[in-house]
Amino acid sequence: MANPSVVDKQGVKAQAAPGRLKFWGWGYEDEIVPASEIQWMESTWAARFGVPGFTVVPTPKAEEIKLSAPRISIPTNLAQICTTDHYERVLHSYSKSFSDIIRVYARECPTPVDVVALPRNEQDVVDLLDWAYKVNSAVVPFGGGSSVVGGVQPPAGKPSISIDMRNLNRVLEIDKTSLAARIQAGTYGPSLEEQLKPSGLTLRHFPQSFKCSTLGGWIATRAGGHFATLYTHIDDLVESTRTVTPTGVLETRRLPGSGAGPSPDRMIIGSEGILGIITEAWMRVRRRPTFRATASVRFADFYKGCDAVRALAQSGLYPSNCRILDAQEAEYNGLADGKHAVLVVAFESDDHPVEPWMKRARELCRDHGGVVEEGSGEESNREGAAGRWRDRFMFLPYFKEHMCARGIFRDAYETSITWDRFKEFHDNIKSAGLKAIEKVTGRKGSVTCRFTHVYPDGPAPYLTFHGFSNSHDRIMDDYWAVKAAASDAIIAGGGTITHHHSVGREHRPWYDKQRPELFANALRAAKKSLDPKGLLNPGVLIDP
Amino acid sequence: MANPSVVDKQGVKAQAAPGRLKFWGWGYEDEIVPASEIQWMESTWAARFGVPGFTVVPTPKAEEIKLSAPRISIPTNLAQICTTDHYERVLHSYSKSFSDIIRVYARECPTPVDVVALPRNEQDVVDLLDWAYKVNSAVVPFGGGSSVVGGVQPPAGKPSISIDMRNLNRVLEIDKTSLAARIQAGTYGPSLEEQLKPSGLTLRHFPQSFKCSTLGGWIATRAGGHFATLYTHIDDLVESTRTVTPTGVLETRRLPGSGAGPSPDRMIIGSEGILGIITEAWMRVRRRPTFRATASVRFADFYKGCDAVRALAQSGLYPSNCRILDAQEAEYNGLADGKHAVLVVAFESDDHPVEPWMKRARELCRDHGGVVEEGSGEESNREGAAGRWRDRFMFLPYFKEHMCARGIFRDAYETSITWDRFKEFHDNIKSAGLKAIEKVTGRKGSVTCRFTHVYPDGPAPYLTFHGFSNSHDRIMDDYWAVKAAASDAIIAGGGTITHHHSVGREHRPWYDKQRPELFANALRAAKKSLDPKGLLNPGVLIDP
Repeated sequence: MANPSVVDKQGVKAQAAPGRLKFWGWGYEDEIVPASEIQWMESTWAARFGVPGFTVVPTPKAEEIKLSAPRISIPTNLAQICTTDHYERVLHSYSKSFSDIIRVYARECPTPVDVVALPRNEQDVVDLLDWAYKVNSAVVPFGGGSSVVGGVQPPAGKPSISIDMRNLNRVLEIDKTSLAARIQAGTYGPSLEEQLKPSGLTLRHFPQSFKCSTLGGWIATRAGGHFATLYTHIDDLVESTRTVTPTGVLETRRLPGSGAGPSPDRMIIGSEGILGIITEAWMRVRRRPTFRATASVRFADFYKGCDAVRALAQSGLYPSNCRILDAQEAEYNGLADGKHAVLVVAFESDDHPVEPWMKRARELCRDHGGVVEEGSGEESNREGAAGRWRDRFMFLPYFKEHMCARGIFRDAYETSITWDRFKEFHDNIKSAGLKAIEKVTGRKGSVTCRFTHVYPDGPAPYLTFHGFSNSHDRIMDDYWAVKAAASDAIIAGGGTITHHHSVGREHRPWYDKQRPELFANALRAAKKSLDPKGLLNPGVLIDP
Repeated sequence: MANPSVVDKQGVKAQAAPGRLKFWGWGYEDEIVPASEIQWMESTWAARFGVPGFTVVPTPKAEEIKLSAPRISIPTNLAQICTTDHYERVLHSYSKSFSDIIRVYARECPTPVDVVALPRNEQDVVDLLDWAYKVNSAVVPFGGGSSVVGGVQPPAGKPSISIDMRNLNRVLEIDKTSLAARIQAGTYGPSLEEQLKPSGLTLRHFPQSFKCSTLGGWIATRAGGHFATLYTHIDDLVESTRTVTPTGVLETRRLPGSGAGPSPDRMIIGSEGILGIITEAWMRVRRRPTFRATASVRFADFYKGCDAVRALAQSGLYPSNCRILDAQEAEYNGLADGKHAVLVVAFESDDHPVEPWMKRARELCRDHGGVVEEGSGEESNREGAAGRWRDRFMFLPYFKEHMCARGIFRDAYETSITWDRFKEFHDNIKSAGLKAIEKVTGRKGSVTCRFTHVYPDGPAPYLTFHGFSNSHDRIMDDYWAVKAAASDAIIAGGGTITHHHSVGREHRPWYDKQRPELFANALRAAKKSLDPKGLLNPGVLIDP
């Protein structure tokens, strides 16, 4: 993490006036991975793949991406909030999925959006849907565009409007008594936290995409955030939602809890833009933590470490962090020697010192053969392996485009499974991934594992894979062969195809196998009642 | 609690071979409220209403309830599992709502079920739905029949089959590693706990109806259980569900967490029988607690006590119990002098001593002016006000039919609201209730409050009301005038019409105002896709 230009931008302050988002990769245009990091990456991966070096495809320029002409004309009443500007169209036509990064580097844009809309308020959203209905145009909601599963590009065969919510970016109300805030859906992570800060409050939802994703995107995709246990998914932080659909506005009540029929919010949460566009939500916030304790624990055996994690997850201690990395992943991230799995466990509170909690957590780790790192303790969260991992974690996605440019494919399987099935499930995915990499690329790659979240009944394993395509022409096929092999293993093993990345367009084949067919029927019918013409994100989650 | 015949039955053991359910009131036929308790009730309420005594309508006998002849004939293939037995038809035609108890005591049964079915397995449920579809009969799923909102009686104008799930009563699998169990939907509370006990596990879901309600009923109605914070609603304990619908079986995956589209389970949870019949579910269980601490805290001012509860709810301590009773309700239950509100706060764990948690809880209570009862501490949960309240709590519903027989109406408004609105909301409901009671009965009644559950963003207040109708002929009108007045205040104040009793037939008018119209449309469409003829619980939650 030698690059201050990247590190500085991770703070809230620098985000107040963010630059332009990259269309070709992660983050903002002025966030540049320093040459020293690129050299480290090249030498490391050349050694791992046993190749002398890499051919580098140059970073694409927007003007190199050819777009077909827009198929719809912006009406006068929407001229102020719509654009066909080339850069905006390019930016909104790609997600940050590895497939899309491959397409960007190939200078291909098979399904460009026709018009990009930037509503200023909810009425603008209503007007945009009215227009879309008039001209039979598909509508794609766009938050920060950080989807890694093809969640923001339009479908083929139809004109499309990308509705970028970035101007609905305010925290509208703060209820300090109930610890809740009404927040517009287009608010980016850093801005959201900045606006809450003067009240001493925080949402504490820090997905890896925090800097370049929005509240509306988190809700629409069931994002996973800061906490490794308890309040992990955004689902539990939502108090109420407000959504514009083609048939009207759907607003739910602010309720701490309810037993009145199936939850309307739970229909909106995870709906990925197919039912409507979320414009705002009341979110459960909390006071900023003042007490903290963090420890790093080494395990000679990954599965023994997993047993410790299970004990922690079932203890009722609810650590805020409880993330284990297998030996190889810990080594890749500079946290260990390649022989030890590393568990980072942390507690935080705004109410009470957390040492009694941490004391018991250390005991549980030691009971399972863990070696607690010296110096782990109160206020140590920015030191040691825990601190190193935290910094590295937010930086990782910035490498993806540079790997793609060098013919390396890198992505993740992220899933969840009950503890009883975990070991076999993990081994099957890993082995399917490794076999597929060797088969399609002719050389060994890597599949490494960490947990992003843990529940009393099971973990959410996150398996990162890397492979090297001999030719840039093959990378898309190679990538998909590898992605598919392990995704098949996930579905066959009873897991979920996504714990927090969402379905988008790219997880659809496995999602179709995972979700009950009768639920798809019900969801399709619900969609038809709210979006009779089926214009909202067609092909995402379900077919018409 | 002088009556051993009732007290003994509350244990798990006595439940192994339960007797026959009462059709005229709460619990089982052999559970008799002792004469001394009845006398206490009579003298107490005569004094409160300022009347010399009560005219008592005798307990009805089944043969006094006249039923119209069944409109459908049981087909040969279902003869073994269907009956038109008079007692069974009577039992299944009433819920335990106060309206239904009035009807029972008036010997009126306006909408009797035609046939009662007792499936032995899932295939029987499938066959029963097939039959219902053939003869266009409404289907009403029946768990323990303990609904207090008219959740089990059939609609008018159509033949009906009540499907009683009591024979699907087994814990089928226990996964001790993941802490989960696969349980049939017809399993009653005590039997469920008895079957888990040899594994050292417990669901720890103890609604007031525990003895006479089932897992399937809890899931279908979004029941609230044992814990006052954190895992309160059954919603969070459900890992996966299996539901028979008229178009097939809908089974979800066992997943600790998922981000794959809107949650299918959350469509089933709270569906109140309109989408299908839940046959089994994988439930998150836990190890039986071995560490406990309980304290009772007195507050001179109810609202100051509520502030303490809010501090506890927002502390991250997650007490297992955190229930406050206002001064009058505490007095009615023999817990205090009528001048003090009483808060019961408790912690439990199977992993660690809970004294650090309790210590901080006591501090928070004292910070808000609470006086912690002497002797409150470890392992004191069966002593003091806390223990008295626990015993009384499970006994309360048994009084309802005896009150009805004496012209006293008694019921509850149970809701939830954010903390910022709580005081005004509470005052408005209470005042609407008291005014309505005085207006319609010509004499003062009571409306008292306790919290059943608390969340960081708000409490679930439970307001019990009592009024005395001068004439048995008026009790239905009086009851509804009072129920409606405060229910209107709940909806106007932004609350939910039900936090855990569910909607049933009786909360429908307010539920219609509460839930977004567009959600009703979506739910109606979803229902139509699963139940094209609209035969499952017609009129519950939505109209066709």
